[in-house]
Amino acid sequence: MPRYRLTIEYDGAPYCGWQRQANGQSVQQAIETAIEAFVGEPAVVRGAGRTDAGVHASGQVAHVDLARRWRVDQVRDATNAHLVPQPVAVIDVAEVADDFDARFSATRRHYVYRIVDRRPPLALDRGRAWRVVKRLDVAAMDLAAKRLVGRHDFTTFRSAACQAASPLKTLDRLDVCRDGDAVLIATNARSFLHNQVRSMAGSLVEVGLGRWSADDLAAALARADRAACGPVAPPQGLTLIQVDYD
Amino acid sequence: MPRYRLTIEYDGAPYCGWQRQANGQSVQQAIETAIEAFVGEPAVVRGAGRTDAGVHASGQVAHVDLARRWRVDQVRDATNAHLVPQPVAVIDVAEVADDFDARFSATRRHYVYRIVDRRPPLALDRGRAWRVVKRLDVAAMDLAAKRLVGRHDFTTFRSAACQAASPLKTLDRLDVCRDGDAVLIATNARSFLHNQVRSMAGSLVEVGLGRWSADDLAAALARADRAACGPVAPPQGLTLIQVDYD
Repeated sequence: MPRYRLTIEYDGAPYCGWQRQANGQSVQQAIETAIEAFVGEPAVVRGAGRTDAGVHASGQVAHVDLARRWRVDQVRDATNAHLVPQPVAVIDVAEVADDFDARFSATRRHYVYRIVDRRPPLALDRGRAWRVVKRLDVAAMDLAAKRLVGRHDFTTFRSAACQAASPLKTLDRLDVCRDGDAVLIATNARSFLHNQVRSMAGSLVEVGLGRWSADDLAAALARADRAACGPVAPPQGLTLIQVDYD
Repeated sequence: MPRYRLTIEYDGAPYCGWQRQANGQSVQQAIETAIEAFVGEPAVVRGAGRTDAGVHASGQVAHVDLARRWRVDQVRDATNAHLVPQPVAVIDVAEVADDFDARFSATRRHYVYRIVDRRPPLALDRGRAWRVVKRLDVAAMDLAAKRLVGRHDFTTFRSAACQAASPLKTLDRLDVCRDGDAVLIATNARSFLHNQVRSMAGSLVEVGLGRWSADDLAAALARADRAACGPVAPPQGLTLIQVDYD
């Protein structure tokens, strides 16, 4: 069976997350249903990152096996046609080797967390950013962020529901910068723990508000205790932007 | 009566446009209703730019007279509180002189028209950009755009419904550039005719698709005939980003 790699964009707002669940519509299920509608057979789509409810993607990657060979533009266009009117789109399709696995072959995941730090509510960025009502000290956030880069026990920044075997992860990048009205937190790693990016983002906002120092952030990491984490940032600011493969 | 200048952001999708109309909810009416709810008296809000149905603003400007003096942050926060849950926000308030008029004192309006040129539908940019299914030649568009800059009779790029006394306008800037996945058309002038930006954007897309040359665009302008205009670009790509005053 030919295997296809799909690159996928979605607005996470109406979904219970990437992963198929008993109650609630998932992005995975939306895509599987669309593919099944055009190939006329059951399809199982496996994603690289199991984004939570409300989290967006501009570059999620998944793979699917189909019984017969289709042109990649047929797979893309027919899937998109059956996805209408949902806010999910397949933006690229490639045929890949049988041993390609969207999740296990991934060498790096890239996320961006977006904050707008202003008092007025968001009209245009609603559902696409976290509004923080006080101005953030972005330089302090960026400096503190560097304390989390490297190989650490990230238990502090891990959801209680996380199913990963180990809390040890290597964080390769965590940068904070201002982009117009927004504050962007850009991060990448081979893989992340459940809620890790939102947990780090929430704690970095504590730094940006002047409530935590960089040392406080480093101490929270060193405690390896979920109770030491700052408030977890809400999902609508987070976007999975890219997944790398060798 | 003290006069206040409001800077306003809105998602145009749910509105019949800026201007109060007999049928359909307008942005102007939403703001007037919110102000009336907190000051307890009728309020008339006058805007700098009468954006059409579906057109967005990140920097619309309006003025309003209130019977008593309020702190500017009170005006901003109370209006925003009464606007919930609508996608309209007052992002700045200043007290201004009695002779300030949001529309007639404006010296320059700045708009950006946003296009995403790709075949897959838009999931994240839905309602915020015009999807054009073929790749655009941005360099050709930018070069052709320069033929519209300056003082001209813009009848070709003017809605039949336009109420301006004269079709003569001076276009100060019309630049086209690529910004990631998007193509941005940035323009400014003292004032624009009705539908002028969307008409110019639609004709520039004809250039980007290779259907029109820069000479064709210049000839369309010179004809001063609405029938010479390309297809008018849809409203959801357009945002009023800034209004200047002396």
